[in-house]
Amino acid sequence: MTATGELSLSVLERVKEAWRPRFLANGIEPYDYEVTTQRIARWEDWLPEWRRTAEEHVAAAEEAARAGHRATAAQYKRLAAMCLHFGHFNVVEPESDWLAAQRRKAELFRDVLPYLDPPAERVAIPFAGIVMPAHLRHPRDAERHPPDAEGRPRGAGRTPVVLYFSGLDSTKEEATTFEDVLLSRGLATVTFDGPGQGETWERMPGRVDWEKAASAVVDFVEKRTDLDSSRIVAVGVSLGGYLVMRSAALEPRIRAAAGIGGRFDQSDRDLEDPMHGPRFLHFWGVRTVAEARPLMTASTLDGVIEKMDRPVLVVHGARDTLATPENARRIVERTGGPSTWVLYPEGNHVCNNIPHKYRPLVADWLADQIGLSV
Amino acid sequence: MTATGELSLSVLERVKEAWRPRFLANGIEPYDYEVTTQRIARWEDWLPEWRRTAEEHVAAAEEAARAGHRATAAQYKRLAAMCLHFGHFNVVEPESDWLAAQRRKAELFRDVLPYLDPPAERVAIPFAGIVMPAHLRHPRDAERHPPDAEGRPRGAGRTPVVLYFSGLDSTKEEATTFEDVLLSRGLATVTFDGPGQGETWERMPGRVDWEKAASAVVDFVEKRTDLDSSRIVAVGVSLGGYLVMRSAALEPRIRAAAGIGGRFDQSDRDLEDPMHGPRFLHFWGVRTVAEARPLMTASTLDGVIEKMDRPVLVVHGARDTLATPENARRIVERTGGPSTWVLYPEGNHVCNNIPHKYRPLVADWLADQIGLSV
Repeated sequence: MTATGELSLSVLERVKEAWRPRFLANGIEPYDYEVTTQRIARWEDWLPEWRRTAEEHVAAAEEAARAGHRATAAQYKRLAAMCLHFGHFNVVEPESDWLAAQRRKAELFRDVLPYLDPPAERVAIPFAGIVMPAHLRHPRDAERHPPDAEGRPRGAGRTPVVLYFSGLDSTKEEATTFEDVLLSRGLATVTFDGPGQGETWERMPGRVDWEKAASAVVDFVEKRTDLDSSRIVAVGVSLGGYLVMRSAALEPRIRAAAGIGGRFDQSDRDLEDPMHGPRFLHFWGVRTVAEARPLMTASTLDGVIEKMDRPVLVVHGARDTLATPENARRIVERTGGPSTWVLYPEGNHVCNNIPHKYRPLVADWLADQIGLSV
Repeated sequence: MTATGELSLSVLERVKEAWRPRFLANGIEPYDYEVTTQRIARWEDWLPEWRRTAEEHVAAAEEAARAGHRATAAQYKRLAAMCLHFGHFNVVEPESDWLAAQRRKAELFRDVLPYLDPPAERVAIPFAGIVMPAHLRHPRDAERHPPDAEGRPRGAGRTPVVLYFSGLDSTKEEATTFEDVLLSRGLATVTFDGPGQGETWERMPGRVDWEKAASAVVDFVEKRTDLDSSRIVAVGVSLGGYLVMRSAALEPRIRAAAGIGGRFDQSDRDLEDPMHGPRFLHFWGVRTVAEARPLMTASTLDGVIEKMDRPVLVVHGARDTLATPENARRIVERTGGPSTWVLYPEGNHVCNNIPHKYRPLVADWLADQIGLSV
């Protein structure tokens, strides 16, 4: 029996309610959420039932492709990939199942990239002997926007860019709906699987000095002739809300950082928790709680965020039970530069229940920091 | 007490469940649906509570505009307009409240049009002494598509176009999410408030010879230098699924017609039904069931659809309780030309619970009829 299998049925039902907003905000169809979770009576059913819905979409994609309907085929592959994503994101054991689902998701999503609107380019970012797969998207029709606050035409030449930091169990494929909002404000997006995440996980586990990976992404941006490396900002969600603050504090080429649902530190995480514990061990690539503990304790902004001398925005939901507002608030209390704190009373973890509120706010704030106005 | 006020609480709760998919498919945020319907304990609360949510979004739009965040202001105005739309769509009494909500929705949505992606142009279509307001949208980046089946470059010159027919209680503002799918297949969209619908209602009530309004839209397309009047197709939902078949049968310039959730005839509608009856009287602009009855009886495809010699597609949900599959199926049984019948076993009225399935299917079918392939 897996660790998550020990969770009670009532927890399962509670989780179904709690997770719905995140799934819907990030590309799962409401119908799929209802019919798939209705089939899930035990934790062991979670991945198989999402895989079943995914394979229905794969079959629909193949049928559409045979009829020459490429856009429809891409839509179904995207739905299939997202079902696989949410099928395995919380089920890290057995590892072989997790890895098979992760790989299949990534494979399916590669075919989707040209059909995203605007499309994405798959790029490989070198870092410490590996490459981190990433998605680069450019804002569409930047030229229809008025000149920016410094009088420069929009969309001509290099595009300002936001780096997108995923969390403990999210990956670049989950970010496209948030990217859409950032793109509509004139920002290009670079969303990458960092150490311990998505496709990069099997090449490199999570690491305390995660900021080194972020600096590699900045190096990548500097080499692109289509991106403006003088206007790099960054955003992160959940654990990514911590990672983005750590990285920005230690990487001065990032001009501003926004975190949603992130923590100041990870030291008080309950690694014995049957749902969350195994996922942290998985992230770090270790087998025991004893190995993970010092890595968690070292994952703190204490002594780090004080170095941050550029603007930070921290957005949090008052109803967040995974990262308390009190913990997150220490980021703005301790940062060395200007800060903005936004607490949504109705918000859950990452404010996933109110994407229409927090995403425009974050996108506008990031654009404002580099003189864009939309 | 209004007619709808006589409906029981259990009906209210059932309706909340039944309507959720349509709201979510057409632009209402899941969060807004849950919190707004939770506040609704009586039918009399329906419009006021949706108006309350709408006004919260209007306030957010004004705040965003003051900060120079125009895209965000437009997003909130769109949410406000859709809350007003679904606040009044089923509450036609008192008429002054209905009209005030309809007008405010339309006013708010005008500011949204440049921010739709792709944007919409507001156009006025002359018909029988009035003008019918409509939204015209062009596919973005048509040139990135391969040449069409007849070897012509896509996006150069005139764009093929689909005319969008709304239903008894839907309007052009509700159609944008379906339009997005049609646009991504290379079709321009013309979505109009016809007789008895939306902004046109106060200028002209519903009429049995509704096809004359459709012909006026075709005339409009012929005058546009950016649209290809040799490649006009049409789609309609719910009552629009009936109207589109009637119009296409009698208007040979429409090359193909698709209907979703439409009926063959309206004669067996229960005009005494406290929810649906008043809405039909409203559509026809009459005060009594006795006046409405002959108009309903005359609204049939019997003797009309036999004239249809171009392709028709009828899509229906087996779980549709407003228009039975048996009634709809008579369209394909009686049409004079080629026909395709698609019944989704899991589909509800208009298959609003599975937009990810029926919309790509319809869009691809329409594109196929005029030699586009995507």
